Amino acid sequence: MKIVVVNPNTSRSMTDAIGHAARSAASPGTEILAVQPEYGPEAIDCAMESYLSAVAVMDRLLTLGEPYDAVVLAGFGEHGREGVQEIVDVPVIDIAEASAHVAQMIGRSYSVVTTLQRSVGAIEDRLRLAGLADRCASVRACGLSTLEVDDDPAAAMEEIVAEAGRAVRDDHAEVICLGCGGMAGLDEAITARLGVPVVDGVAAGVRLAEAVAGLGLRTSKVCTYAAPDPKRIPAWPLSRHLKAAVR
Amino acid sequence: MKIVVVNPNTSRSMTDAIGHAARSAASPGTEILAVQPEYGPEAIDCAMESYLSAVAVMDRLLTLGEPYDAVVLAGFGEHGREGVQEIVDVPVIDIAEASAHVAQMIGRSYSVVTTLQRSVGAIEDRLRLAGLADRCASVRACGLSTLEVDDDPAAAMEEIVAEAGRAVRDDHAEVICLGCGGMAGLDEAITARLGVPVVDGVAAGVRLAEAVAGLGLRTSKVCTYAAPDPKRIPAWPLSRHLKAAVR
Amino acid sequence: MKIVVVNPNTSRSMTDAIGHAARSAASPGTEILAVQPEYGPEAIDCAMESYLSAVAVMDRLLTLGEPYDAVVLAGFGEHGREGVQEIVDVPVIDIAEASAHVAQMIGRSYSVVTTLQRSVGAIEDRLRLAGLADRCASVRACGLSTLEVDDDPAAAMEEIVAEAGRAVRDDHAEVICLGCGGMAGLDEAITARLGVPVVDGVAAGVRLAEAVAGLGLRTSKVCTYAAPDPKRIPAWPLSRHLKAAVR
Amino acid sequence: MKIVVVNPNTSRSMTDAIGHAARSAASPGTEILAVQPEYGPEAIDCAMESYLSAVAVMDRLLTLGEPYDAVVLAGFGEHGREGVQEIVDVPVIDIAEASAHVAQMIGRSYSVVTTLQRSVGAIEDRLRLAGLADRCASVRACGLSTLEVDDDPAAAMEEIVAEAGRAVRDDHAEVICLGCGGMAGLDEAITARLGVPVVDGVAAGVRLAEAVAGLGLRTSKVCTYAAPDPKRIPAWPLSRHLKAAVR
Amino acid sequence: MKIVVVNPNTSRSMTDAIGHAARSAASPGTEILAVQPEYGPEAIDCAMESYLSAVAVMDRLLTLGEPYDAVVLAGFGEHGREGVQEIVDVPVIDIAEASAHVAQMIGRSYSVVTTLQRSVGAIEDRLRLAGLADRCASVRACGLSTLEVDDDPAAAMEEIVAEAGRAVRDDHAEVICLGCGGMAGLDEAITARLGVPVVDGVAAGVRLAEAVAGLGLRTSKVCTYAAPDPKRIPAWPLSRHLKAAVR
Amino acid sequence: MKIVVVNPNTSRSMTDAIGHAARSAASPGTEILAVQPEYGPEAIDCAMESYLSAVAVMDRLLTLGEPYDAVVLAGFGEHGREGVQEIVDVPVIDIAEASAHVAQMIGRSYSVVTTLQRSVGAIEDRLRLAGLADRCASVRACGLSTLEVDDDPAAAMEEIVAEAGRAVRDDHAEVICLGCGGMAGLDEAITARLGVPVVDGVAAGVRLAEAVAGLGLRTSKVCTYAAPDPKRIPAWPLSRHLKAAVR
Repeated sequence: MKIVVVNPNTSRSMTDAIGHAARSAASPGTEILAVQPEYGPEAIDCAMESYLSAVAVMDRLLTLGEPYDAVVLAGFGEHGREGVQEIVDVPVIDIAEASAHVAQMIGRSYSVVTTLQRSVGAIEDRLRLAGLADRCASVRACGLSTLEVDDDPAAAMEEIVAEAGRAVRDDHAEVICLGCGGMAGLDEAITARLGVPVVDGVAAGVRLAEAVAGLGLRTSKVCTYAAPDPKRIPAWPLSRHLKAAVR
Repeated sequence: MKIVVVNPNTSRSMTDAIGHAARSAASPGTEILAVQPEYGPEAIDCAMESYLSAVAVMDRLLTLGEPYDAVVLAGFGEHGREGVQEIVDVPVIDIAEASAHVAQMIGRSYSVVTTLQRSVGAIEDRLRLAGLADRCASVRACGLSTLEVDDDPAAAMEEIVAEAGRAVRDDHAEVICLGCGGMAGLDEAITARLGVPVVDGVAAGVRLAEAVAGLGLRTSKVCTYAAPDPKRIPAWPLSRHLKAAVR
Repeated sequence: MKIVVVNPNTSRSMTDAIGHAARSAASPGTEILAVQPEYGPEAIDCAMESYLSAVAVMDRLLTLGEPYDAVVLAGFGEHGREGVQEIVDVPVIDIAEASAHVAQMIGRSYSVVTTLQRSVGAIEDRLRLAGLADRCASVRACGLSTLEVDDDPAAAMEEIVAEAGRAVRDDHAEVICLGCGGMAGLDEAITARLGVPVVDGVAAGVRLAEAVAGLGLRTSKVCTYAAPDPKRIPAWPLSRHLKAAVR
Repeated sequence: MKIVVVNPNTSRSMTDAIGHAARSAASPGTEILAVQPEYGPEAIDCAMESYLSAVAVMDRLLTLGEPYDAVVLAGFGEHGREGVQEIVDVPVIDIAEASAHVAQMIGRSYSVVTTLQRSVGAIEDRLRLAGLADRCASVRACGLSTLEVDDDPAAAMEEIVAEAGRAVRDDHAEVICLGCGGMAGLDEAITARLGVPVVDGVAAGVRLAEAVAGLGLRTSKVCTYAAPDPKRIPAWPLSRHLKAAVR
Repeated sequence: MKIVVVNPNTSRSMTDAIGHAARSAASPGTEILAVQPEYGPEAIDCAMESYLSAVAVMDRLLTLGEPYDAVVLAGFGEHGREGVQEIVDVPVIDIAEASAHVAQMIGRSYSVVTTLQRSVGAIEDRLRLAGLADRCASVRACGLSTLEVDDDPAAAMEEIVAEAGRAVRDDHAEVICLGCGGMAGLDEAITARLGVPVVDGVAAGVRLAEAVAGLGLRTSKVCTYAAPDPKRIPAWPLSRHLKAAVR
Repeated sequence: MKIVVVNPNTSRSMTDAIGHAARSAASPGTEILAVQPEYGPEAIDCAMESYLSAVAVMDRLLTLGEPYDAVVLAGFGEHGREGVQEIVDVPVIDIAEASAHVAQMIGRSYSVVTTLQRSVGAIEDRLRLAGLADRCASVRACGLSTLEVDDDPAAAMEEIVAEAGRAVRDDHAEVICLGCGGMAGLDEAITARLGVPVVDGVAAGVRLAEAVAGLGLRTSKVCTYAAPDPKRIPAWPLSRHLKAAVR
């Protein structure tokens, strides 16, 4: 099985880290192809960046030019999953949703610990639209941006563990979801200190993609996620016309 | 007061129609500037197109180069409002939300009549995230695409009035919201036949934009809709690099 | 356009203050007629007083004897809007609901700061029935009664600003609604200190009334808010029989 | 134990019928005092009438002048319960709420069958504010007004049974609540035809009032339902000043 | 009227205490039969024990061999009510639900104070499935197990009153429900200290059972709670085959 | 990896069918151990049977005597998952929940088609408590009991496909979940006829169990699902004392 894991931002180091996390989590026999868009922000911390990323991710998949069995979208709380479901035929798994699915299977309630307070709303919205908010005890921010977490995960750990501790103690969370790709690897530290299971989104996404694809299931095309009707869309996919600008 | 009304698709005739509807609804003294993106689909009927449109609309506003007092986003159920709120300082009004606000002020419950069944989910999602779904009796589709409605509004009227009638009779809707820009002008026909008030989104958007701007209020920048942090975003705004492709 | 703004209590000074606030917020060309009931409490702090006020407000409108284009009900969290919608033909705007409508257009979430804890329930109920509770982060009480706020707004400011600060910090409110007529004027102080937009109910009500009436829309009479059927109602309107008692 | 059962309208025959129903349902040793307001409508079919009735009911209780152990408010979906809870010390039971409480104890879901469609909203609102809407499968209207049901219950029965049948068959209601005082006596007919239990509101209200008072419990006065603060309320209670008009 | 009150655990002293509480709360003329299962845990603090208890309670009622008019299930937050409703014809009242019903009739909101944090979820689930969670301000744990409360109620009182105080102050609860059978008798202490009414589940259950049975109502058998279809169930009721083991 | 798949009823043929379905769905290298309880009903169609089954399933697992990596509970809408989570250390997956998880990953909304109308409530409750009801368009019954479906799946197919068709057409379901173990194999027929993906619960449960166990995650033991405290439970596990009766 071949799974395309899409880092929604244009940071090469983060794409590498996500690819590494995906390969560590995958079953034997699963091939991981980690890709990133050709344009868009190097990190995503607001809706403007998230929308741009969603388009760039769709663009990347439209121009990928090789077959695969499932897609994992490795942005936590980003836009785009519905659009990707329309343009590809294989299962599409968003890692924020994957985290919540897995968390609900192993605990009565879960909390998400993410980066900045301004990102909390986007994650709440995504969980809510996916029908996964009911068992969410809280979405909490540690106060560090994606780049800050990425730059120095060790230094970020104290803040993240502290916030996870508040989720467990004050919100009665029984599982913690790491709400940011750059948090990969912190799961063991949190479990060791707080005694709760920790779900890493990329790992959860890969395993659920394997499960759904392994069941022989694909996105329902009967209505909402049907392929777009043929239509003139000037300059789309945009990447074909942006070559010079993005090199 | 000057209000920018943004048609989210690239159909010039629809931009003209929206501009006309906006001017008809505006107060004396309000200037309407109707614009459209420089790239993206000529009509929006799915999430892929909606995401692309959201980016193209933000792009258009970032490169507009003249001052204004409010923005009205004239797509019904499209993405993008949160992103626009981040990048402009003045009030931003989405017409699906504006329709619901106005409908709730004049009736106990409302229904939306839109184009295709596949668009129902997007409208439901937008209303839900805006906290406006509670008094929504139903979102119903008349079965015609945006282009079909736009091509022949007269022929579409029978289907739309029939669907509105089902909303009133079966769902106990007391107000009907027209869920598509191309439906402008059908309001009188529906009111005449069904006896319920009909809300046109562009008109509602313009009047609410006047109201909010007139109160001297602007989008809260304290958290979610703060301006994006400075960050390297290759090729953004994209329009600067797509000139050749979109002409 | 002529808008009747109804102070629901019988305090002449509060009627004057509400009339002043309404005129300050109105568009040029809008005439404000500020009225108050002929009987009922001089301030409203509980359900008994609120119900009595609702009847006295309907009574006042039934006996007003001059034409107008919209009604603004200037009680925050009081009963009566549905009844007024039945007996008048023009749009009827409740200021608690108007505040929430406007707040939702300029922020992801809002909090209301009101007077006494015992009034919190009434405001929550009104927002909930209006379908506007979903984006309400909290309704908080500053601990002062309507009369105490009215008597000494300056002294009340510290308490109100402190409570608004808790709403922003603890409940992540991005907009503050002032939940009491007597709080008019405090908006600038709160915005200056907390950096969040503040919505004044009377101002919001007047501008939304202008918007809805300007759209040519009226309350739906198709079902819930149809005019009452003719019926013998002894002594109604009551004011005709209470002349001696209320002078 | 002495229970005051308040007919919210001014129809003497309906007060007598309610008193009869209450006495039939009461335990041995319970005394029923059936009263009606001194002013207000002879039947309640809209919000305006309901608000006026709420005030007249509070007025009646304030001027009753004799002790009692509990109050049953015998209007289905009318306003006023919260106000009465403030002004009396004993338990106050609303019959719409009582019906829902009892229905939830004997079935998974219940439906209400009431009079006119325009009254459905008021009943839904009351159940929702009381926290009793979750197990409500539907509130359905038979299309006859209170006076029409009262005038000819036999003729109304066919319509009511038909509507109850739709609730059982289409909404999967397992219990039917009769949503109108004048429907008393129809319960046996419905149970015989549909096989579901039927709850009569007045009977449910009386038995629950006995239960709560028998437990030695009273309305919590710690916050929302505390007695109104002393305050000058011109002409209140109104009945003292309306003597001539209402005789 | 004869009411069977079922202690869901196998502690004889707790059965006696529950029987005593039931008799104290019952109306004159009501006979209380307090029973306990023949197998299962001596106290219930988790789902495994709760499920086993539910089966043992059904078993006990199936083999009781004498007529009665209603059943009160005296476990707070335990499983089983739906099963008992299927196998008996008379009304079945769960004390957690009864507490919530009564609390909602005397206050705007209520909190439950129970034993261990791990039991909070079970109580929340029961209230939610019963449609009684909406007015529940919180379910709080005092941190003591059922056996600890039972062993030394006096020593437990301080913890329980402290937790109830937090519910009133922080969650704005207006009524407190005692979430554990062994807490009987603490109600007066809490009311004296906090000024809020306190609902004891066994007392509430008995009075509501009297009310429902007194109305001549029984569980609806039209669908969910119909008697089980005849079917071969090996070894059922189990008690017939466990005689030696449980003596 | 070794997964124990537990048929909750005592039908040997159904255990065999479930084991076969599980093996067909499992990844290479996954060993399936299909077991059934030693007592309890041969099919489960009501709450009484479901509770008894939950106890018998826990009993079976407590006395299994061999190691395994995950448990799949193969009853659709049955009780017991929370109890099993307490007594085993490995992940526990309920097939109704697993179906909903998978369905939500491949479509905007899903419907469940189950056996009898009386079972609908149990499935709705399980989905609701698991936080998976929000995207559930409907739970529909085909009107045949578990045994009828099991006896003659071919004859049952017409009814099931017809009901699934109503879910797609009337409720806008985009995915169908087969709500009964005996429905295995019908998925291809439904997909062929209706064009929507069909989720089989046993298959979904096995693949999700592989995914969660493969992630190295286990049920959170920090609160609700902690192991039961040591306690005297007479005759437990019951199977040790029922040997004679169940042979």
